[in-house]
Amino acid sequence: MLGVCYYPEHWPEAWWPDDALRMRDMGISFVRIGEFAWSKLEPKRGVYEWGWLDRAIEVLGKAGLKVVLGTPTATPPKWLMDEYPEIAPVDEQGNTRGFGSRRHYTFSSEVYHAESARIVEMLAKRYGNNPAIAGWQTDNEYGCHLTVLSWGKQDLNAFQNYLRKTYQTTDQLNEAWGNVFWSMDVNSFQEISLPILTVTETNPAARLDFWRFQSGQVVAYDKMQCDVIRKHSPGRFITHNFMGFFNEFDHWKLAENLDIASWDSYPVGFTQQFPFSDEEHVKWATTAHPDIASFHHDLYRGVGGGRFWVMEQQPGPVNWAPWNPVPKPGMIRLWTWEALAHGAEVVSYFRWRQAPFAQEQMHAGLNMPGLSELSVGGQEATAVGVELKQLGTLPAFQQAPVAIVYDYEASWITRIQPQGQDFRYHELVFRWYEAVRRLGLDVDFVPPGHDLKNYKLVLVPSLPLVSDQALEAFKRAEAIIIYGPRTGSKTRNFAIPEGLAPGPLRNLLGLRVTQVSSLPPGVVEQVDGKISGTAERWREYVETNSKVLARFENNDAALIQNNNHIYLSCWPDETLLHATMELLVKKTKLNITKLPPHIRLRKRGDLTFVFNYGTKSWAIPKGKKLVMGGPKVPPQGLTIWRN
Amino acid sequence: MLGVCYYPEHWPEAWWPDDALRMRDMGISFVRIGEFAWSKLEPKRGVYEWGWLDRAIEVLGKAGLKVVLGTPTATPPKWLMDEYPEIAPVDEQGNTRGFGSRRHYTFSSEVYHAESARIVEMLAKRYGNNPAIAGWQTDNEYGCHLTVLSWGKQDLNAFQNYLRKTYQTTDQLNEAWGNVFWSMDVNSFQEISLPILTVTETNPAARLDFWRFQSGQVVAYDKMQCDVIRKHSPGRFITHNFMGFFNEFDHWKLAENLDIASWDSYPVGFTQQFPFSDEEHVKWATTAHPDIASFHHDLYRGVGGGRFWVMEQQPGPVNWAPWNPVPKPGMIRLWTWEALAHGAEVVSYFRWRQAPFAQEQMHAGLNMPGLSELSVGGQEATAVGVELKQLGTLPAFQQAPVAIVYDYEASWITRIQPQGQDFRYHELVFRWYEAVRRLGLDVDFVPPGHDLKNYKLVLVPSLPLVSDQALEAFKRAEAIIIYGPRTGSKTRNFAIPEGLAPGPLRNLLGLRVTQVSSLPPGVVEQVDGKISGTAERWREYVETNSKVLARFENNDAALIQNNNHIYLSCWPDETLLHATMELLVKKTKLNITKLPPHIRLRKRGDLTFVFNYGTKSWAIPKGKKLVMGGPKVPPQGLTIWRN
Amino acid sequence: MLGVCYYPEHWPEAWWPDDALRMRDMGISFVRIGEFAWSKLEPKRGVYEWGWLDRAIEVLGKAGLKVVLGTPTATPPKWLMDEYPEIAPVDEQGNTRGFGSRRHYTFSSEVYHAESARIVEMLAKRYGNNPAIAGWQTDNEYGCHLTVLSWGKQDLNAFQNYLRKTYQTTDQLNEAWGNVFWSMDVNSFQEISLPILTVTETNPAARLDFWRFQSGQVVAYDKMQCDVIRKHSPGRFITHNFMGFFNEFDHWKLAENLDIASWDSYPVGFTQQFPFSDEEHVKWATTAHPDIASFHHDLYRGVGGGRFWVMEQQPGPVNWAPWNPVPKPGMIRLWTWEALAHGAEVVSYFRWRQAPFAQEQMHAGLNMPGLSELSVGGQEATAVGVELKQLGTLPAFQQAPVAIVYDYEASWITRIQPQGQDFRYHELVFRWYEAVRRLGLDVDFVPPGHDLKNYKLVLVPSLPLVSDQALEAFKRAEAIIIYGPRTGSKTRNFAIPEGLAPGPLRNLLGLRVTQVSSLPPGVVEQVDGKISGTAERWREYVETNSKVLARFENNDAALIQNNNHIYLSCWPDETLLHATMELLVKKTKLNITKLPPHIRLRKRGDLTFVFNYGTKSWAIPKGKKLVMGGPKVPPQGLTIWRN
Repeated sequence: MLGVCYYPEHWPEAWWPDDALRMRDMGISFVRIGEFAWSKLEPKRGVYEWGWLDRAIEVLGKAGLKVVLGTPTATPPKWLMDEYPEIAPVDEQGNTRGFGSRRHYTFSSEVYHAESARIVEMLAKRYGNNPAIAGWQTDNEYGCHLTVLSWGKQDLNAFQNYLRKTYQTTDQLNEAWGNVFWSMDVNSFQEISLPILTVTETNPAARLDFWRFQSGQVVAYDKMQCDVIRKHSPGRFITHNFMGFFNEFDHWKLAENLDIASWDSYPVGFTQQFPFSDEEHVKWATTAHPDIASFHHDLYRGVGGGRFWVMEQQPGPVNWAPWNPVPKPGMIRLWTWEALAHGAEVVSYFRWRQAPFAQEQMHAGLNMPGLSELSVGGQEATAVGVELKQLGTLPAFQQAPVAIVYDYEASWITRIQPQGQDFRYHELVFRWYEAVRRLGLDVDFVPPGHDLKNYKLVLVPSLPLVSDQALEAFKRAEAIIIYGPRTGSKTRNFAIPEGLAPGPLRNLLGLRVTQVSSLPPGVVEQVDGKISGTAERWREYVETNSKVLARFENNDAALIQNNNHIYLSCWPDETLLHATMELLVKKTKLNITKLPPHIRLRKRGDLTFVFNYGTKSWAIPKGKKLVMGGPKVPPQGLTIWRN
Repeated sequence: MLGVCYYPEHWPEAWWPDDALRMRDMGISFVRIGEFAWSKLEPKRGVYEWGWLDRAIEVLGKAGLKVVLGTPTATPPKWLMDEYPEIAPVDEQGNTRGFGSRRHYTFSSEVYHAESARIVEMLAKRYGNNPAIAGWQTDNEYGCHLTVLSWGKQDLNAFQNYLRKTYQTTDQLNEAWGNVFWSMDVNSFQEISLPILTVTETNPAARLDFWRFQSGQVVAYDKMQCDVIRKHSPGRFITHNFMGFFNEFDHWKLAENLDIASWDSYPVGFTQQFPFSDEEHVKWATTAHPDIASFHHDLYRGVGGGRFWVMEQQPGPVNWAPWNPVPKPGMIRLWTWEALAHGAEVVSYFRWRQAPFAQEQMHAGLNMPGLSELSVGGQEATAVGVELKQLGTLPAFQQAPVAIVYDYEASWITRIQPQGQDFRYHELVFRWYEAVRRLGLDVDFVPPGHDLKNYKLVLVPSLPLVSDQALEAFKRAEAIIIYGPRTGSKTRNFAIPEGLAPGPLRNLLGLRVTQVSSLPPGVVEQVDGKISGTAERWREYVETNSKVLARFENNDAALIQNNNHIYLSCWPDETLLHATMELLVKKTKLNITKLPPHIRLRKRGDLTFVFNYGTKSWAIPKGKKLVMGGPKVPPQGLTIWRN
Repeated sequence: MLGVCYYPEHWPEAWWPDDALRMRDMGISFVRIGEFAWSKLEPKRGVYEWGWLDRAIEVLGKAGLKVVLGTPTATPPKWLMDEYPEIAPVDEQGNTRGFGSRRHYTFSSEVYHAESARIVEMLAKRYGNNPAIAGWQTDNEYGCHLTVLSWGKQDLNAFQNYLRKTYQTTDQLNEAWGNVFWSMDVNSFQEISLPILTVTETNPAARLDFWRFQSGQVVAYDKMQCDVIRKHSPGRFITHNFMGFFNEFDHWKLAENLDIASWDSYPVGFTQQFPFSDEEHVKWATTAHPDIASFHHDLYRGVGGGRFWVMEQQPGPVNWAPWNPVPKPGMIRLWTWEALAHGAEVVSYFRWRQAPFAQEQMHAGLNMPGLSELSVGGQEATAVGVELKQLGTLPAFQQAPVAIVYDYEASWITRIQPQGQDFRYHELVFRWYEAVRRLGLDVDFVPPGHDLKNYKLVLVPSLPLVSDQALEAFKRAEAIIIYGPRTGSKTRNFAIPEGLAPGPLRNLLGLRVTQVSSLPPGVVEQVDGKISGTAERWREYVETNSKVLARFENNDAALIQNNNHIYLSCWPDETLLHATMELLVKKTKLNITKLPPHIRLRKRGDLTFVFNYGTKSWAIPKGKKLVMGGPKVPPQGLTIWRN
């Protein structure tokens, strides 16, 4: 189904009915509203203006549209900030952040918890049972603009309390963090300071705990909102709109608050920000890289426990990337279908009409700036609406043969201590994802510790901290599991495990890591054996009695197998990575389709979708029963067949 | 005529008479003095030491030199800063700037206005009628080191007052800025905060108003000085020394205070700082790019309403660029003549003698450090003095056939919201200027709204905000006018105009812009038609019924003509730009001389000047009546003929 | 001899005896301990815990090991910071630095002087006569993480006092600094402010004095510690562990406090941080550049007046560089022998056992993380221990034929005023060192003013400030002396000398510098004559009546000789530099051995050491009497012969 993000408060009330009808007519079912409107709902302390929102919901409802109501807490108004200046977050240099954009609050502000609960409760009470309301979105893009970590007095107080609860005594904290190292011991929890503005790096154990703490603050803040909403709005779903390549807090944990995950899909800008090669950047500049959107669909489908929306779908050129090219014609349609193929329940465009004013005025909408006239993206969305009607209900979704174990702490740990400057967790996971997708395989994302049964192949690109539950899941799994570098290299307290990495996996893999080497640009090591290629960026020295599938030039083990457990002791270049994946997939007996760089396949139920991101058309395998599109998939086109 | 900047306070008084005689003997007429001497004139509050300045002016006057007296307000002394710490500007991180360099005041400090008025009045009263005083320079290089924008309490107060006057009510301000967008509405003008330290970008409308406000503060501060001087020093001109590639405040408006514009010409450093290609940077490293100085001569001649000086002419290697090479032999002479060819009334070298101490000790002078011995630059200046005497009075100046519409708000708007990271207004204008100069054409700069009659060709490289006056001038013009990308794309309140860009020019051009695409590096689009080339960085999608002179590959319009109004919907590469200019010039029937990259022509009255910036000599057209130089212009040489 | 850095407080007490025996058995004689242990020694104000340190020293002593006891002042504990927050340093933006790493004190804190004296005295009294204590290390790596310069209130007060003593009157200070330049004059020493947060650059004379002052604060702080130790610990040596490429304070002056210099050798990271070409970076990524370690050995042997240790020798991959590759097998052994060849009395590895926790957990030790099992580096160190026993006592050290005059103020001056962005003093000195080392010559480092007799060749890569003593030493010298660019270009007060550069050397060299040109990347000038090559980065214009050995294309003098004094007026590229050195060495009649890039020779007494940093073996000259190794030196190997 289709949806759209709408801001009635931006447009004359007289336009609303026509907007609603035009939405309905183009096949839109859901409308998200309200998420930045605090100053319109409560222009001054205690002065409420519900009228406009009452009427907006009524207009939308009358047109048969279902409303997702956003809580407006991402933008506390100025009168509130002036009343309680301590709401504002503090940056890493100790500066209190200013008013005038959004997300200007710290999750550790108790008064902001109370104020948020108040406004959310007012909304939930007033609209909770309104029949037009289908669901809720809490806040907006938690953590956007790097607002998870704040470094003020309130953060410090809450962090000290968190540590008091976690460690009980300072002796235990000193021991856990290894504070003996540089006379960092504290005698009381009040002596704890925030790990900032120091002369050189602070204790990584302290930083990891600070990150865990702040991640927990986000989850707790969201839970507060969900609790209030559930109390007053029974039978409605709650979601939150997550972001792309964003690991600042633990999404697995936050999603426990929610009914459905959703995310905001801006493939062109994400492609531009990803550390692709220059050549790739040019190649995919106006289509996005073919795995950028689907990587996130698969991730957030996992985060949502199988249920996800695209809450904001890029509908044309946007405003926030260094460059903002117009997507190639056809891409809005392609991205929409791709989301549906990957299991999205709703694809909701951001936004209905381009706002000609304020910060996002260069962000396209389905309608042109200030006009009731469809943009190119609006026309493509309309086409999808028609096609969707023709196709009818999409089949149910099934588990994929391949799982990727994705871990937020892995991102924090490798960022707190990169050891090699270009060891980027999200890049590593993305490249592993790309490699199996190039073989035509579908992928699920699961958290560490998730049951792995029914998967044929499990990828663990890197998992520095292996919990007891994760270990159990790995032990029980029957899949081929491949673990990447740094897996098992840290304890909960950010220490090297007793007996060395891979720590808890030592027996399962039959190896230990005796040295790690981060390789500067231009320094590589050749790998040969059952596969060949090059290690770059990172290379470990391993002692093992297990089977060695490939070795470095000096005979050291590079790819090690112990039963169904396989360890890759380096950061592989493209050749080595793709060869490794192909080797593993062969072991699983899965059928593969080797795809050119610009083609991707996705199954949903008995349908197979083909997407063409390139400049040349692609002929689908012969003998397929076509449901949509032809046997030659044109550039920026798609074809669907029934198996 | 020639001039020089002199600091008698830096040298023993016994040297002054000899310095003055040597100046006179080398053909210098004007001497600028005094502009950093506050601590010498008033070493402590209320303690004045006029004696040395009295005597210095007397010595210079006796030698027949005319004095331009600078007000010393760019360097408030330490005792004053300690008395009123609020004079100091505040940076964008909220830090109060320290003492120890220059320009350490905010234009919004009321006490600094009063103190400045006091010291300027003391000077104007004492020297205003002194026969040696020919004119005044206010302050020094307003805004240098990015000091236009300051972010302190005084700036905030003054900004709130400015907004109160501009918008009267907060409702009108909220509406104008689109504050509804992210709950940014304010209930009182006291609620307004400065657009800094926010989590993400602030409202561009607020930033544009803040920039306008600060630009106005500079103009008002300067006007205060001019008013005081005019009251006490009748018959003397007032100027200010502007800078190169500096758009931080509106020079058109400030120049209304002045009688003559002047600017400080450092071609080598400006070339180094300009975003040229690596190849260009190497090619022009020691001569400067051939259009760097003349671009500014033409701009400031416009700013000065036809009258301008070079107040500071680079006399050799300087100190402030990342690298400071010695200019090629001959360049000091060439730059001097070039300024005169472009209409400079006086070319004044900075400085008489290299100071062997303090911040600028590596900045060459006409004399070597601490010595009374000419430097290489001093010898070249002497040669110009002799040549000038031989040549006699230069003919009067005439209007050029080509005008460039130059707008300071265009720079602010595109910097506040680049949309594409490499959309640089000053670069675009410079490249358009270069393209017509390569055809041997002379250029004037005019502000938007300036009468365009008698011009054959008008270039509007980009003018996002088209005022009523600008529109009227375009309508009345008979010239071929070419408008570049983003023209007409914004309203006064930084919004997209109703009915889309080019807003007020929609009818004149017969088109509207439906999408804009900023192109990342390496992404280009081919253009073909009456001209060919490539679009890069920026490309618009246009609907039009006008005549299309060239199209993109997908058939979209690239170059559109409606009568004498022509629109270029992209950032052109060199090929496309030069082809476009040649096509337009053909339409004007102007005679052109296609010049190699290193040669430039300039007419002044009946004289034509040829300048050679290259490594190979250039043969002038046959049959010319030589006034200076030969028919083969050698590298770093010049030739003058009479038409 | 060998040593090791050990942290008994990091390990169970039960491990200590075994650790000590294993140290002894592998040939280690010295153990450094204690230098970060303040919080373990005094966990709260006035509560002391000496027991563990008593026992640790006893255990080590019993095993026959000698202890170097470090004072723990690099890490004041939290309770002390909370008691006296003013101890914390302040950064250049005015932020007080936080707790949680190390070196969080300013040398200007009087209370920290007192507290440091107190803890050092407690230690010195308790252990000063302990027979196991062989010597002391003051603090740890003074200035590490750029902590020499601090910008707080206490720094300001101390700086004002320093200036009062230095200049007596503000008139003299204003005159010395040239404060007239921009009205920077002060009327009292209280008016002096720190040279930070200004709008543009501050007075270089002020900055140089601030640097001198802060360098002096480091020296005074260290002297305080040394005085306390000497009083209570007679007969023990005192050292301090200096760093690589670190010029923030004057090491010549600080070393006057010490008996022995020592330094911390991390060749791989230093190579990575040095501005080598990309090609060189890849080539030497895992061996380090062949001159990186030896440069410092020779420098600190000079600083130590002939006596030096390597206090911390990299034993494997480390943690602090952007990338931290595993060194090539053999390098730990090679570096150890190389240090000994260059005269190190002790090479002490950092650290005994890799700590699996806290900031440096990825820093290798001689034992693997948390284990009593030798690492690769530990095995190589063991091999050296055996070899050392076989070889017996190494012969005494002798003066080298070549001296380099090394000056800390030269570094400050060129950093305060680079004039050309890539004029880096340490890079210039290093390249000159490399050039003579490639000729097989040994090198000493001496301070300016040091007696130069018995040297055949003296290199002065750049010495902007030539003191009277330096001038005298140059005059008296019989060596060929070559002076590089900028020599003699500044006075004590950071001014251009009267009569121009090279100031005091004008007569000795028979030349003066009339212009200086810093050359941007890609701009070079050809030099030809007795030598050929290219000038890059920097080129001076010289007037001279001396003999010109090589000229620029325009006939200007590039290499000038006046008797035994030679001036090179540019930054030479590799070709020009090596040709120059070869020409000079020919004049000295010294025997040379032209070495390939990866081979180095070093004499110690009658032994000659050959080190191979490359990938190909190298055949030593025929007929040598081998002491260790064979006639073909393998990659990462060494050979010793007796002359």
